[in-house]
Amino acid sequence: MMKIGLADTTFARHDMASDAINELKSNTTGLKLIRVTVPGIKDLPVACKKLIEEESCEMCMAFGMPGPDPKDKVTAQVASTGLVQAQLMTNTHILEVFVHEDEAEGKELATLCENRAREHAQNLIRMLTHPEKMTKRAGTGQREGFKDAGPVK
Amino acid sequence: MMKIGLADTTFARHDMASDAINELKSNTTGLKLIRVTVPGIKDLPVACKKLIEEESCEMCMAFGMPGPDPKDKVTAQVASTGLVQAQLMTNTHILEVFVHEDEAEGKELATLCENRAREHAQNLIRMLTHPEKMTKRAGTGQREGFKDAGPVK
Amino acid sequence: MMKIGLADTTFARHDMASDAINELKSNTTGLKLIRVTVPGIKDLPVACKKLIEEESCEMCMAFGMPGPDPKDKVTAQVASTGLVQAQLMTNTHILEVFVHEDEAEGKELATLCENRAREHAQNLIRMLTHPEKMTKRAGTGQREGFKDAGPVK
Amino acid sequence: MMKIGLADTTFARHDMASDAINELKSNTTGLKLIRVTVPGIKDLPVACKKLIEEESCEMCMAFGMPGPDPKDKVTAQVASTGLVQAQLMTNTHILEVFVHEDEAEGKELATLCENRAREHAQNLIRMLTHPEKMTKRAGTGQREGFKDAGPVK
Amino acid sequence: MMKIGLADTTFARHDMASDAINELKSNTTGLKLIRVTVPGIKDLPVACKKLIEEESCEMCMAFGMPGPDPKDKVTAQVASTGLVQAQLMTNTHILEVFVHEDEAEGKELATLCENRAREHAQNLIRMLTHPEKMTKRAGTGQREGFKDAGPVK
Repeated sequence: MMKIGLADTTFARHDMASDAINELKSNTTGLKLIRVTVPGIKDLPVACKKLIEEESCEMCMAFGMPGPDPKDKVTAQVASTGLVQAQLMTNTHILEVFVHEDEAEGKELATLCENRAREHAQNLIRMLTHPEKMTKRAGTGQREGFKDAGPVK
Repeated sequence: MMKIGLADTTFARHDMASDAINELKSNTTGLKLIRVTVPGIKDLPVACKKLIEEESCEMCMAFGMPGPDPKDKVTAQVASTGLVQAQLMTNTHILEVFVHEDEAEGKELATLCENRAREHAQNLIRMLTHPEKMTKRAGTGQREGFKDAGPVK
Repeated sequence: MMKIGLADTTFARHDMASDAINELKSNTTGLKLIRVTVPGIKDLPVACKKLIEEESCEMCMAFGMPGPDPKDKVTAQVASTGLVQAQLMTNTHILEVFVHEDEAEGKELATLCENRAREHAQNLIRMLTHPEKMTKRAGTGQREGFKDAGPVK
Repeated sequence: MMKIGLADTTFARHDMASDAINELKSNTTGLKLIRVTVPGIKDLPVACKKLIEEESCEMCMAFGMPGPDPKDKVTAQVASTGLVQAQLMTNTHILEVFVHEDEAEGKELATLCENRAREHAQNLIRMLTHPEKMTKRAGTGQREGFKDAGPVK
Repeated sequence: MMKIGLADTTFARHDMASDAINELKSNTTGLKLIRVTVPGIKDLPVACKKLIEEESCEMCMAFGMPGPDPKDKVTAQVASTGLVQAQLMTNTHILEVFVHEDEAEGKELATLCENRAREHAQNLIRMLTHPEKMTKRAGTGQREGFKDAGPVK
């Protein structure tokens, strides 16, 4: 049974991990999902590294919602840098699923969160089970949670 | 007896570590608190790493108050990046409790410091003893020291 | 048989990896090309590190197209920082082939992507087989995908 | 005999290391001071790491004066990030004593440099010999080289 | 025979490495110089690390010319961060010799490149053979390639 880690935050304003869990459960069998919740996005890198090294997860998803202030943008950079570093230290993919609070408003923001979480769950499934399906999409301008941009013409 | 490390600075203008210590002592038994004070926030990452590796702390809190200048904002980014790195090197959580000096003024700033320190102490307790309580709060827009933002609707 | 890794993304809006593969196949024999596709550029560092460490690739190319927003520019910095780190951890070159979406428009952007991918494929060939040809070009203002800037006079 | 490392630069426009050495010698016995000078602040991290690992220094001070241009500010960030990393790799404190060239002018800048160097030398002494004196100052708004900001009221 | 590594780029618009090689050969005996050329400055960190670890170089110089766009400035930061990291991983100095394309124009830019390369070659010689000469210059405001700023008065 393959273990997948999901790390999310209490700071975020939408429960993206639950959306992803629903998507994963609806589309796969044989995955064991392990979820952990931390205060903010800067706590996600070590949370994922522990899921990988202490819980034997073979891949992770990290969910977060950076705020709109300049300070929050720096926080997002620090968190992303840490997530990349955690991946390099473990040779394991961690899909970063961040929605910036200023990408949309109200109901539209909630929908964006859900769609991005679900579409990245689909990415995870493809990467784990049919990586050649990822390559079919290479260079096609996929935009998780939004309308795809499509290839340049 | 579980050891918890607390690292803070002489640069900060409020003694957040004492607030957190008070909160931890009022709400737990069986924790041994080890505190160390350094000059500024860039000294916090190694201070925490030493608390973890040389003092066997199982979790840390790092308190700091970045100043208002652009130079100070860069310092905060460097310190946060280091704190994330220290966590990745030790597989141990370090809760960053930073209050930027320009988040509020005077008495309001002091209150913000105290509340953020206490609420992150509560996060630490939840993470150590009842991690499922963290997940209950996932995606609920918690804001330590401020009124919570709540979930998007 | 020497193995070369190619990592690209579904976010990009042009299939640069295919251009590079065509260029490599047209100009070399004895290379085995291994390709993997990930969602976005922040997923490239670990993808390359796995190609190097798990697939024994002796050199990699990482293709990506950062978007035009400030947020995307930060993402590009995080991805590039990770690619440098992956190289340092493996003592292996990874040629970063990024085209920013705002470097050109429409057909011109697609042409830029193709040319940059092909010219970096040529760089890879030179580095692998005739490194002295790289040194002949040292300080000559090469610009992959654009007209060369040439040396200062 | 405890060894202390001091690393400084030829780029700086004031000899802060000599100020610190004077302060350390006037206030301690039993310290062996080892000094090394490098071109600029980006050379300080490895200089300190070598002082720690090759010369067995138990703590270091790193002196530098970033210039006023945007390019210089980035250099300062890179240097600071490296100093934090050097500390994490060695579990050893390196006190960063940087004075930005635009913090003051002429004689006032020289005085700021001297005072900051001396006050950080005092920090080093406290950290080595009486760490509890650091904690007494926690949250009191210390400003090395300037009038202290004091605690928020 | 002591080995010195020199890494430079095809992107730069002046051949600084040749200037440095000329300076080193004119002023030393017993140095073996090993040169490698890569496409751009982000390729320099691993190039230097390989010179150190695979070619046994005891010190390196890394030459590059970041372009004038914001994107290029970020590239410079990524490259510098990587060069610092490469030094920390090897306990070996790598002198970064970067000239930003917008520091000067035309002939003046070429002269700046040559002078900076030669003066850093002199720094390398001092650091290797007479480190006490570096300390004599500490805090004197040296500016490689430009008129020295001198000490603050």
